[in-house]
Amino acid sequence: MNYKDTLMWKEISETERAIAGFNAVNAKTIAAIVADTEKHGVKNVCLAGRGTSDHALFYFKYLVEIMSGYTAGYVAPSVVTMYDGKVDFSANLVIGCSQSGYAADVIAVIEKAKEQGAVTVAVTNDADSPLAKAAEYHIYLNAGKEVSVAATKTFSVQLYAMLNLACALAHRDDLVKKYASLSEKVAKFAVEADKFTSADADRLKDIKDGFILARGLAYPIAFEGSLKLQETCYIRMRGYAMSDFYHGPMAMVDEGTHVFVYVPEYTGGSAELAAAHVADVKRCLDKLTSLKADVTLVTDSKAYDCYKGAAHIDEFAPFGDENEAMFAFALYAQMLACKISCAIGNNPDSPKSLNKVTVTR
Amino acid sequence: MNYKDTLMWKEISETERAIAGFNAVNAKTIAAIVADTEKHGVKNVCLAGRGTSDHALFYFKYLVEIMSGYTAGYVAPSVVTMYDGKVDFSANLVIGCSQSGYAADVIAVIEKAKEQGAVTVAVTNDADSPLAKAAEYHIYLNAGKEVSVAATKTFSVQLYAMLNLACALAHRDDLVKKYASLSEKVAKFAVEADKFTSADADRLKDIKDGFILARGLAYPIAFEGSLKLQETCYIRMRGYAMSDFYHGPMAMVDEGTHVFVYVPEYTGGSAELAAAHVADVKRCLDKLTSLKADVTLVTDSKAYDCYKGAAHIDEFAPFGDENEAMFAFALYAQMLACKISCAIGNNPDSPKSLNKVTVTR
Repeated sequence: MNYKDTLMWKEISETERAIAGFNAVNAKTIAAIVADTEKHGVKNVCLAGRGTSDHALFYFKYLVEIMSGYTAGYVAPSVVTMYDGKVDFSANLVIGCSQSGYAADVIAVIEKAKEQGAVTVAVTNDADSPLAKAAEYHIYLNAGKEVSVAATKTFSVQLYAMLNLACALAHRDDLVKKYASLSEKVAKFAVEADKFTSADADRLKDIKDGFILARGLAYPIAFEGSLKLQETCYIRMRGYAMSDFYHGPMAMVDEGTHVFVYVPEYTGGSAELAAAHVADVKRCLDKLTSLKADVTLVTDSKAYDCYKGAAHIDEFAPFGDENEAMFAFALYAQMLACKISCAIGNNPDSPKSLNKVTVTR
Repeated sequence: MNYKDTLMWKEISETERAIAGFNAVNAKTIAAIVADTEKHGVKNVCLAGRGTSDHALFYFKYLVEIMSGYTAGYVAPSVVTMYDGKVDFSANLVIGCSQSGYAADVIAVIEKAKEQGAVTVAVTNDADSPLAKAAEYHIYLNAGKEVSVAATKTFSVQLYAMLNLACALAHRDDLVKKYASLSEKVAKFAVEADKFTSADADRLKDIKDGFILARGLAYPIAFEGSLKLQETCYIRMRGYAMSDFYHGPMAMVDEGTHVFVYVPEYTGGSAELAAAHVADVKRCLDKLTSLKADVTLVTDSKAYDCYKGAAHIDEFAPFGDENEAMFAFALYAQMLACKISCAIGNNPDSPKSLNKVTVTR
């Protein structure tokens, strides 16, 4: 099956339009959430989701903690569903995320939190779903129907929802305005990503396992990139924060081990921090090179040109903003998974053993 | 190399003594932490650690949220070290965990949190380490020197520290008293675990990858079990919460895929919840059986006897308390990793590419 004939590919290509349609529908809801959160005196955000949705929430955690005073952490749904735990969400903003809006464990968390008096938000692609109705506020992804089992455009719009909510909570109207044109950048980037992923899929279609390493904001996208390759290509791919990788998993790297490194151009802080960041990534690349790993470096930064000899480099045109560059990594990962899946004779639209709507408790 | 000649094995066998030595040294510190946390009006706990230490903190998250009103979440250290984020820890109890006490990123988080006025706690095995000195309170693991790269007895004592702190925060003096004799249960269990892990290591020594599935409290131990097999045997082993596994990774399971399922006897709540829990685990086992996975069920519960025909079952004598049973799973995982490592000709004491003290930022 040619990847261009898959629903997955069609839905990936709808990302631009889905992002473009988000703000008109949700700007008022987001303003109301911010007002209520502040009125409530919230200092901590609790995040509930599974799989892809969990990765979007992870992106939010970084954004909100970097941009504002809030702390943010994951909910372990089984504390509610399985242990009837004493946990008290009343002082928190609690965000439940599920594309379908049918994730029973996330619904249970939102219901408990609402009953306790927390500010509750549901992020779904179905306004009639039980999760959308359980929460006080509903952020509607408005991505259009998604049929392929692997979440693609809905994930990108989840990221966009998280970006806008984090900016609003930090009162960064300037950034909200700036990111309003993100869909155009995504459309432009898709052309580049198409080229790189075709070459990578051809080169990497027979891999059985590997790792995706990243730092900071890109770490959630490393998780998501791994999940895409797991569910559509059955590759044992695993995302790690570089720092965690040194604490054990590095021992699994041998000659020829496939390692993707996702490194956006660092735009998060001072020149000193930028230099430290680049040095850290170089240290990791040096280590991987010394172990003779087969590294594919995915970046929009010129800082790693020095590795051109030792690694495969997919170097995109600079995004100029790390928060936005994450959408490029997400698209790259989705396109690569779709192409490899077709190249090895799978149908990425219906992975074995999986359903589109997954209900766990 | 015979596993009995490794430092790792020697240190595993010191677990009992290390646990037994904990309370005398730390009871007063823990009481002071609880008093200060309450005086401070803390409602949320922030947890910072990498690798094994991170898994111990994850166990704490479940315990504290089940037993008391606190919410608890992970810190992403790079928000502090890499982005100089605006995150405000002042209203929180912030716990930094590191066996060596030299984890630079964890130290940076504790320093920032202390400067902001948070209640800060360090959990280390070295009272002179920078982390021990950075925090307001120091919980001293008192496990004796650990030389083998893979953390074993120190991990178990970290779990014990978390258990005692969670019980104290919930004012469950009855449980603190009950768990004071945990070391005796561990010693008894070690005899059983030795038998099971010898048989399993023999049967499984050639596996290249696989999964460890668990729910709730056992989920952190599934992570830890995977890390042990990764770092000492270079097996691509990965821990998952059962619920997350349905959201994508299940697609990687084929005929013969190795899947460990860690299921403690559920002692967390009502008979109704217990029945729902057993039904959930059975659903997962049915699914794995239908995919012809090679399942090793590790349990202290008789509820899964029905799978004796379809799965390898390591059924231990009942622990009677889920919180305590986690120490059994940890010991099982460590023993298995040590034995497989030796069986395939590795030296588990010095995994390639790893150092005992890992410093990342």
